[in-house]
Amino acid sequence: MSEEELYQSDFFLEMVKQMRALDTYGVQDKQTPQKLMAPFIISKEARKLIPVIGDPDPSTISRVAAFYNAIAMLIEKECGLMARPSINITHEGFGTVHIIVGKLVALERVVRDIHRFGFETPSKMKDEGDKLLSVALALIGKHPEVAGL
Amino acid sequence: MSEEELYQSDFFLEMVKQMRALDTYGVQDKQTPQKLMAPFIISKEARKLIPVIGDPDPSTISRVAAFYNAIAMLIEKECGLMARPSINITHEGFGTVHIIVGKLVALERVVRDIHRFGFETPSKMKDEGDKLLSVALALIGKHPEVAGL
Repeated sequence: MSEEELYQSDFFLEMVKQMRALDTYGVQDKQTPQKLMAPFIISKEARKLIPVIGDPDPSTISRVAAFYNAIAMLIEKECGLMARPSINITHEGFGTVHIIVGKLVALERVVRDIHRFGFETPSKMKDEGDKLLSVALALIGKHPEVAGL
Repeated sequence: MSEEELYQSDFFLEMVKQMRALDTYGVQDKQTPQKLMAPFIISKEARKLIPVIGDPDPSTISRVAAFYNAIAMLIEKECGLMARPSINITHEGFGTVHIIVGKLVALERVVRDIHRFGFETPSKMKDEGDKLLSVALALIGKHPEVAGL
């Protein structure tokens, strides 16, 4: 898949929407999707240089939120039920993410070293998003009565 | 039920345990259960006087956590499955509380004006705890396969 095709996928279209939603004053209105996604793409070497001491940057936390919000929106789109993300990150950059559908925990993840949140390539980022989405949808498919509560 | 009997109930025994757990340095080791529970009991009049502006007091937030942790422990005790509380309170004293068992959201509550968190009497506090517990246990009883995941 070319990078252009990648950015036309449901996953990246939703990610871009989430990033634009965060941009309250529209200062990035003219940015391309590539530019908006740039902070998510971190090479292995660059990642190692980010210290994991102290509080994670607020913009990092909002990127984590954008990523899981996008997953929640994609779950909603696929199964037609409301998905509510709940993100709990402590000051040390450690925490849990839940995406809840009805009374079902469709996705649960422990996150750590959130300071270094990022993906090596856009393609790896989409793979990760797609993987989380399919795990969540499989669980919803298995327990529709709880997801529908 | 006399106040003494009340404090011998499972609910208050667990609440006292939670409050002692918060007391890292043991400065309240010699306090009676009544004393430990005192900050939870707020009369209607006193409640009105607590401003809901600004950040809630950290000790208030830890009392909210103690209350829902106690509920989670009681759920565990009753059904034998691990219950994980997740408490998300924003700086404005508004937030959500989840207690998750397996992949089931056994309890979900939107909380607001957390600055004023408290109960009129110990008996009303126990009633509220028991109510939440029975709702959660009923849901777990209905969906044991999801709670067991």
